[in-house]
Formats: sequence, C-alpha cells, structure tokens
Amino acid sequence: MSAVELVELWRGDIRESVHRGHAVICDGSGAVIEAWGDADKIVLPRSSAKMVQALPLLESGAADAAGLTTEQLALACASHSGAAIHTGRAERWLADLGLTDSDLRCGPQDPEDPAEHKRLLCSDESPCQVHNNCSGKHCGFLTLNRHIGAGPEYTEPDHPVQLAVRAAWEEVTGETCPGFGIDGCSAPNFAASLAGIGRAMAGYAAAREGRGRRQGAQARLVQAMMAHPALIAGEGRACTDLTRTLGGAGVVKTGAEGFYIAILPERQIGVALKVEDGTTRASECVITAILVRLGVLSPEHPVAQRLRNPRLLSRRGLDTGQMRPVPGLFD
Amino acid sequence: MSAVELVELWRGDIRESVHRGHAVICDGSGAVIEAWGDADKIVLPRSSAKMVQALPLLESGAADAAGLTTEQLALACASHSGAAIHTGRAERWLADLGLTDSDLRCGPQDPEDPAEHKRLLCSDESPCQVHNNCSGKHCGFLTLNRHIGAGPEYTEPDHPVQLAVRAAWEEVTGETCPGFGIDGCSAPNFAASLAGIGRAMAGYAAAREGRGRRQGAQARLVQAMMAHPALIAGEGRACTDLTRTLGGAGVVKTGAEGFYIAILPERQIGVALKVEDGTTRASECVITAILVRLGVLSPEHPVAQRLRNPRLLSRRGLDTGQMRPVPGLFD
Repeated sequence: MSAVELVELWRGDIRESVHRGHAVICDGSGAVIEAWGDADKIVLPRSSAKMVQALPLLESGAADAAGLTTEQLALACASHSGAAIHTGRAERWLADLGLTDSDLRCGPQDPEDPAEHKRLLCSDESPCQVHNNCSGKHCGFLTLNRHIGAGPEYTEPDHPVQLAVRAAWEEVTGETCPGFGIDGCSAPNFAASLAGIGRAMAGYAAAREGRGRRQGAQARLVQAMMAHPALIAGEGRACTDLTRTLGGAGVVKTGAEGFYIAILPERQIGVALKVEDGTTRASECVITAILVRLGVLSPEHPVAQRLRNPRLLSRRGLDTGQMRPVPGLFD
Repeated sequence: MSAVELVELWRGDIRESVHRGHAVICDGSGAVIEAWGDADKIVLPRSSAKMVQALPLLESGAADAAGLTTEQLALACASHSGAAIHTGRAERWLADLGLTDSDLRCGPQDPEDPAEHKRLLCSDESPCQVHNNCSGKHCGFLTLNRHIGAGPEYTEPDHPVQLAVRAAWEEVTGETCPGFGIDGCSAPNFAASLAGIGRAMAGYAAAREGRGRRQGAQARLVQAMMAHPALIAGEGRACTDLTRTLGGAGVVKTGAEGFYIAILPERQIGVALKVEDGTTRASECVITAILVRLGVLSPEHPVAQRLRNPRLLSRRGLDTGQMRPVPGLFD
C-alpha cells in the first residue's frame, strides 16, 4: 500500500500542493484499528520516540536515585524551544549531576523561542548545547549514564545507554529493530514499522502504575508530559497547545521529518503517523484531524482550527486560501 | 500521470522521506522534449512567473520612459532576501517615481538576509514593504501603473496592470488562463499547465533582441537577470549561486511551494518543475539535477554538490545521511 494523500493546500481555485503519508490508530491490545497508507512501512520516529528513550532512565532506578521531578521527566521527553524555562532547568539538571554544558553530546542549536533567539543574536552570544531541543533527553541519558557508571560518549550506538534504549524500543514496539539512523542530536534513532510504533504508543496509553515496573515507568512519563505541556515544546508550539487542550485526556509529540504520535490514556489508544515528505505543517494538520476524529478535540476549538484548517494569508493579511485534511479522510 | 518520486532522503540505512512532483523540459519551438510526472498538470508558478509579470513593463514602453537600468529589471524579476543591496535599490526606485513605501501593496516581510534580520530585530524596527521579497516586482508594477495612469490599487485582479500581466501570461504560455490565486505579496498569480510554463520559459530562452518588441523585452529581462545574480535572490541563495555558476549560460528562478524554472538561452531550452508537497529543498535539488543532466552544470561543482547531493549533518557535525535525486531519474 502506497502513501495516501492526507493534506491539501488550496490557493484560490487551484489545488496548489498536497502531502501524502501513512497513519495508524492502535487500541490497548496493540492491534491496528484504523490505518491510512502502509501500516507496515519502516520509519524513523525521530523525537516522537523520546518517551521510549527515557524508559531505561526510570526502569533502571536512575531517575528515583537522582530524585528527578515530574518537570525533569517531561523535559527528558521534550523537543523544546530553547526558552529560558527549558534551558534553566537543563542547566540546573547538569549542575545537580556535577556536569556542565560541555558534557552534553547533542550539539548547539539556535533556539526557536523568539525571545531567547533575540537575546542571543543581539548580544552576539552563540547558542549552547542546552539550547538544543533535545537537551532534556540528553540530561536523562547523562543521569542514566551516571547511574550505570559507563563512559562519557553516551550517544555511541554501542554505548550501554543506547543499548538499553534499543532493548526498550524492541520491547515496546514488539519488533526486532530493522535499523537506525543518527538523529540531529547525534544519538541513534531506532526504526520500526509504523504499526509497531502505534502499538508502542497504545502500550503507553494503557499503562497504569501498580502494574509492574514497565507500566509504572510508562505511566509516570505520560503523566509528566501531560502535567507540563509548556516543557515538552514551548509557547505557541503544536505539542504544547494540543496537549494543553486535551486537558489530561492525552499527550501528543512531534518528530522531525513529518512524524507525530498521540497517547490517549482515557481511551487506551495510541496514534502514529509519518508524512512522506517530512513536512511539519502537514503532520500537525493530520494529528489534529485524528484527535478530532477520535472525539477528544473539538473541531471548533481555536487550536484545532489553527492546526487542522488554517487560512493562508498574504503578507498584507488577505485571505488567499487554506490548508485542510483531504475531505472525507478523517470525517 | 501521477506525480513521480523525484528526491529521497536517507538517514543511515533508512529511506526516511521522499518528495514527488512533475517536471518538463521544452525546446525553442515550445515542444516538451522531456517530462516527469504530469506535464499537463495545472499549477501556480508563484515567483517563477516574475519575468512574465515584468513583460508589460517593457512592452508598454514604461521601462524605457522611466529609464530603468538592468539592475532594476533584474530586481523586478527577483525574490530577494531583503538585504541592503535590495532594499536600497527599491527605496531609490520608489523615490524616482515620487512614491514611498506606503504606495506598495506587497506587505512587510521579515528579511531572509541574516544581517538585515539582525539589524531590524536588535533595533526593534519593524520590516517595511521594501523588505518584502517581491518589492522589486511591485516597483515594476508601480512604474507601469504610472505610465498608463491607472489607480493606486494595482494588485486588484481587474486592475489594468494585472489585466496586462494576464494577457502576457496567456500569450507566452499559449493557453487560456484556467484560474489564478492571490500570491503572498497580494498580487494575482496566474495558473497554467506545467508544459505551458515550460513553453513560456523556452520562449524566453529563444528570444533575441532585434526580433520584435516581445522577443526584445524577453531577451532584455533574461540578460538583466543573468547580469545581476545577487539581485534576483541574495548571497547564499540557490537562484543566485546557480545563476552565477551558469556563467551566462542561463538563469534559474524559484517560486514558492516547490516551483522552479530555468531559462537557457545558449541551448534555447526552458525548464519548469513543481514539487507536489511544496518543499524548497526538493525543488532546489531537482532544478540542479536537471541542469547537470542538460550538461550546463558540472556535478562536481560545489554548488551542484550542495544543492543536488547534500550530506545531512547532525548539530554536532556528524554525517547522518544524504538528500539526492531518485537514482536513474536524471542520469
């Protein structure tokens, strides 16, 4: 099954652009209950896998040994904007570990947060590694690494930290990992089928504390992300706005190159999607359309309107057209 | 014929993303000599149409009456970065017309030029309409408008300036315009088939001065764009770097939503392409691959390497994969 048309852009009476891709919805048993495109496609989840990359941090006991807060657990699962609320917490976390920015291996990144971008640019400061959208994940890696006493190059694919992540990835997806890529933050990003990732997210949605170490760790990460939506992305970002709007019904998490997941504990449902061309505007539109389809988000909510059915304005503010899900696909 | 896979991104051993679309190569007679995807697809050229939108400016005699330089003709065909070399020329052009920034109808835009972006942000200045990447095109509209003595709302689809553009568009594409959209700069953007746009660009490639008003105007616009590659886009931009590298063999021009054209006078060839999903990284890759295929650009040239076969690096500089044309497609 090839990629299907998911999103279309109209300008005047011309259908100007279209985005294709694949999406799955899985139930608490891990079964695919709905699919668009190829559910068996091998994909890279990119940052949509962060709640899995954080699993060994909890299951090893490292998080509790370090006394990590729910804010730190949310930050470990974040693709943040590099705002002060993110970088300050990452810096304190490093200091608690007796480490500094130079112990990170994620590399520096110009922050997406407008205020911090302006502060750095106008003071001729270079971004630090804590500005990297993955710095919380890397603080989690460093906390696990401290706990197990392994070497400093924790992003190497054969490092004990990454071997633990790979084992967790194979367990929650229920698949033997078919390969991996090196992510923008220089850590390995393990592949799976889209259905396997939907199954993993459904597992997080069905996880409950008191049902063993695995489920307890998964439930704590989901609760932390839902409790701190501003920490998993940033003000004005889709993950923050959608998770806030879900109001405890679930959490969504973006990944680079058009990936998105949703974890809906109340419904014990997991969602995973990949826009073939890697475009974020389309992955945000599709995850929003699926949340509306599942009845956990009102199509009238301003956030749903903005992400699922945005009007396209000229630089003078004239209405020039719209982006929308392909009609009938998610209705 | 549906869109075909044009460009693929690889991360490690995973084919992570793919871009589909349509492309045509036309000869001096206007015949399609090569096509990928659907040559008859109705598309919006966006800024790739600027050398057609500037045609009435020359054919009416307005450009010569105003004594426009080749720099101004290049700027009229530009999607510029809003650098000082662009905004300064646009401001002087407006002053020569006895007009100001407020007479433009393109709207303000934060400049892509890093130095000007920094200057505005750090001085808390708002961008002006001359910063809009289309401000040169709009100065051309205002020059034509002054010449014909029409009203100030020159971007209205039924304004004489836009009716003249529409007539020129239908003549060079050889088609009755099937519709239009309002562009980001609030001017109408007229649609055509991809083959019609390739035919139009081949007409520009075959045009010679001394062969009548139409060909003379087309040849002057092409010569102006080739003579001033820094004015049609900006330092570091694909249009500027590719046109410079072509060294008089031709000019390329990007359009929003994954559009690109090439005009190759020495070969009397025109190229037009549309990436279905609207992604610039892919349209830059495909136009570069076609220039290499046509033998006017060396695959070893650093600009060709950067745009056609870029390595994808992590934020720490690790090699994580590559973007490339689909193998065999343009070889």
